[in-house]
Amino acid sequence: MIDILRNVTEAIFESYTKVGINHLDGGNLPSRQGILKIVNDYEWLIFPGYTDEQPVDSREARFVISETINRLARSLTAEISKSLCYKYRASAAPFRCVPETSRLAAGRESCSQTAPGYAGCMSEAETVTKEILAGLPALRQRIHLDVEAAYLGDPAAKSTEEVILAYPGLEALIVHRFAHELWIREIPLLPRIMSEHIHGKTGIDIHPGANIGAGFFIDHGTGVVVGETTLIGSNVKIYQGVTLGALSVKKELSDSKRHPTIEDNVTIYAGATILGGETVIGKGSTIGGNVWLTRSVPAHSKVYNNPEEYRIEK
Amino acid sequence: MIDILRNVTEAIFESYTKVGINHLDGGNLPSRQGILKIVNDYEWLIFPGYTDEQPVDSREARFVISETINRLARSLTAEISKSLCYKYRASAAPFRCVPETSRLAAGRESCSQTAPGYAGCMSEAETVTKEILAGLPALRQRIHLDVEAAYLGDPAAKSTEEVILAYPGLEALIVHRFAHELWIREIPLLPRIMSEHIHGKTGIDIHPGANIGAGFFIDHGTGVVVGETTLIGSNVKIYQGVTLGALSVKKELSDSKRHPTIEDNVTIYAGATILGGETVIGKGSTIGGNVWLTRSVPAHSKVYNNPEEYRIEK
Amino acid sequence: MIDILRNVTEAIFESYTKVGINHLDGGNLPSRQGILKIVNDYEWLIFPGYTDEQPVDSREARFVISETINRLARSLTAEISKSLCYKYRASAAPFRCVPETSRLAAGRESCSQTAPGYAGCMSEAETVTKEILAGLPALRQRIHLDVEAAYLGDPAAKSTEEVILAYPGLEALIVHRFAHELWIREIPLLPRIMSEHIHGKTGIDIHPGANIGAGFFIDHGTGVVVGETTLIGSNVKIYQGVTLGALSVKKELSDSKRHPTIEDNVTIYAGATILGGETVIGKGSTIGGNVWLTRSVPAHSKVYNNPEEYRIEK
Repeated sequence: MIDILRNVTEAIFESYTKVGINHLDGGNLPSRQGILKIVNDYEWLIFPGYTDEQPVDSREARFVISETINRLARSLTAEISKSLCYKYRASAAPFRCVPETSRLAAGRESCSQTAPGYAGCMSEAETVTKEILAGLPALRQRIHLDVEAAYLGDPAAKSTEEVILAYPGLEALIVHRFAHELWIREIPLLPRIMSEHIHGKTGIDIHPGANIGAGFFIDHGTGVVVGETTLIGSNVKIYQGVTLGALSVKKELSDSKRHPTIEDNVTIYAGATILGGETVIGKGSTIGGNVWLTRSVPAHSKVYNNPEEYRIEK
Repeated sequence: MIDILRNVTEAIFESYTKVGINHLDGGNLPSRQGILKIVNDYEWLIFPGYTDEQPVDSREARFVISETINRLARSLTAEISKSLCYKYRASAAPFRCVPETSRLAAGRESCSQTAPGYAGCMSEAETVTKEILAGLPALRQRIHLDVEAAYLGDPAAKSTEEVILAYPGLEALIVHRFAHELWIREIPLLPRIMSEHIHGKTGIDIHPGANIGAGFFIDHGTGVVVGETTLIGSNVKIYQGVTLGALSVKKELSDSKRHPTIEDNVTIYAGATILGGETVIGKGSTIGGNVWLTRSVPAHSKVYNNPEEYRIEK
Repeated sequence: MIDILRNVTEAIFESYTKVGINHLDGGNLPSRQGILKIVNDYEWLIFPGYTDEQPVDSREARFVISETINRLARSLTAEISKSLCYKYRASAAPFRCVPETSRLAAGRESCSQTAPGYAGCMSEAETVTKEILAGLPALRQRIHLDVEAAYLGDPAAKSTEEVILAYPGLEALIVHRFAHELWIREIPLLPRIMSEHIHGKTGIDIHPGANIGAGFFIDHGTGVVVGETTLIGSNVKIYQGVTLGALSVKKELSDSKRHPTIEDNVTIYAGATILGGETVIGKGSTIGGNVWLTRSVPAHSKVYNNPEEYRIEK
């Protein structure tokens, strides 16, 4: 066995040079472990006392809050900094680390170089962290509306406590709202790893670029996909399996609006698919389950599939 | 940085008073950690020896079983007690902790009051725990039928061991059968957090209120939604993406039957949606993939979408 | 309480004998914990340095690689060995551990017997482990093409680093490629537990038996089901909710090809369902979203549902 293992080690090592897709010597990338800590601390600050093993007293709360914010500031600065350093390394090389076969074959040293601006990524990370933390109280106000929307939107919800403790749509949404703050500040990787973490947990895939208004409610949620350039108004409600996606997936479209606009007070039932960057669902509309839409509908439309079309055999 | 963090701490603290949605001073709520322990011990008792790192000998098994039951009794009593105390606190205030903006703005002290009945929640929790533990042997008999249904229902299943170790539908179902025992005894929060835990793990969202007969089989399972007032007979089989849901989500309907009735020996293929509390799928029926049904069909119906309707372009 | 718990212990113990579905005295089965370690080490070897907390230097990399391969060899041998011993025990009894009620009622001792061939399962496990480790460099080359396919296939992908760190379709696929290596060597249980682990994490359910060509890309992925006997060519792209499934789930079909063949360069959009072992999707075809197909289409077909059929009410 030992000989074999030695040979495998050499062969694997060689493949790192030949085939690429390795990040040895590449500098740190944001770590999933670090991101998990960020998400946990952030969730506690938004909903304090809900998931603690012991009750938290408001007299001691200020101490716990302060401690949590300090820890969050540290880990957030670290992961943002890694993301920014990655960006500057990548842009010192041709701007994006595109998978050109030739460069990959060369072990992609070009991406590992120290770049101009690299030194500044730690202080830039601190600035972004401060901005994001300072925005938390305002974020809580928005999330309050999300909680209320979920409670009022689901007859099975018995209390807001249940919504906070057991609604995956709410958890995916509050993580999205945080990831989006990173996204609009052009932090790479970190917000996407964050959104994938919560996608894995909830089955709800919201790209951090999506712009989502107040009082958004996703019920059940498994299979929901909300694309990068989606624009969603206030008081919108969607169900499991809804896709807000692109009509074309040509790579050269990456900088254009590819995903739909959903105006205020729209409800979209389970399994509906709405595609295209020019598609606008007018305010107050209802989109029925499984409807497939690739063009706009005016305000207050009700869009349903034709009356149930199936045949019954005995 | 320090000044900023101090300001953020104050602002967050203030937002807890102003915006609400905090559970400081709120008394304990059932903890996800505690629920995870309950699920693990319960799963071991149902399927002993399958997931252990070391083989378990039947001579020592009685000791391990006794230890596991004692631990399960402790954690179950604790979490049920927290759930009951929560219920009595909430009912001392206006019955449900509804998100009235005015009360939330006041920091919702009204929900934190000690309520009449509060003292009794520990002994009530013990009674419920005893009942549920005493029911485990009978539950194992029902689950035995579920295992057999999964093995016989899937040609890809090579053995019952594979079904027990690798079928998410079975895991979601056995956790549901436990959560349902809590639900019918009117324990709040705990069964819902339990069903959400397994929803996150499997993509299968069964509300603990759903009433499910013997020998139920869910294959693949991702995206399945089974609503609170669903009634399912014996030997029913469903596939990924099936929704058994409500036709209306008006909040005032929360106490009515909103979800369908599925009679014995029905098979529902992937992606089918069946909605409405009056909808009854007669026994022995087959519902084809992607069918959308909002009214009843008689026994032994076969319901399919019209013959494949698509166009092929070259 | 104590009396009750003692009674419950006895009743549960008795139910293990009466009802069966216990694995006491059953010998070890592959452990989820062990499989998690295998997946982690394997993922690190494929993509070294991406998820490490500290940057990994190529000078020390050879040491880390060697250590990781040794650890992987140990845990892989152990879990394969458990799987093989299980197979030989099961075949010493009637070939498969079928859930005959009579045998289950007897506590299924027949499955616990030491079988001919049992002694050899450790050395057979070592042989398989060597083969699989020796194949890792070639596997990395195939996975390189998968990374490139994902990057080029999604306009929202900003870099290959993002693909590696945040695309669940890629993670499900690389775990599948490993599980498939176990599958073709007729190792039971282990590959299925592995595919279920990643199904739980990503919502993507690929049976380890599925045969998948080079440069495969699954975007978003939640709800994807790829059946045991599916055959997929090169450069195929599929989206969330796609099912490649069976037309019939009769148990006696378990040894036949039940799932479709997808030829090279086919794209299948979200929610499409393709069923049947005789169904062949000709090369270069595009299958539109939500299309339901149960027969073959020739090369270069474009299959769409009829132009959007819905009604709009105002």
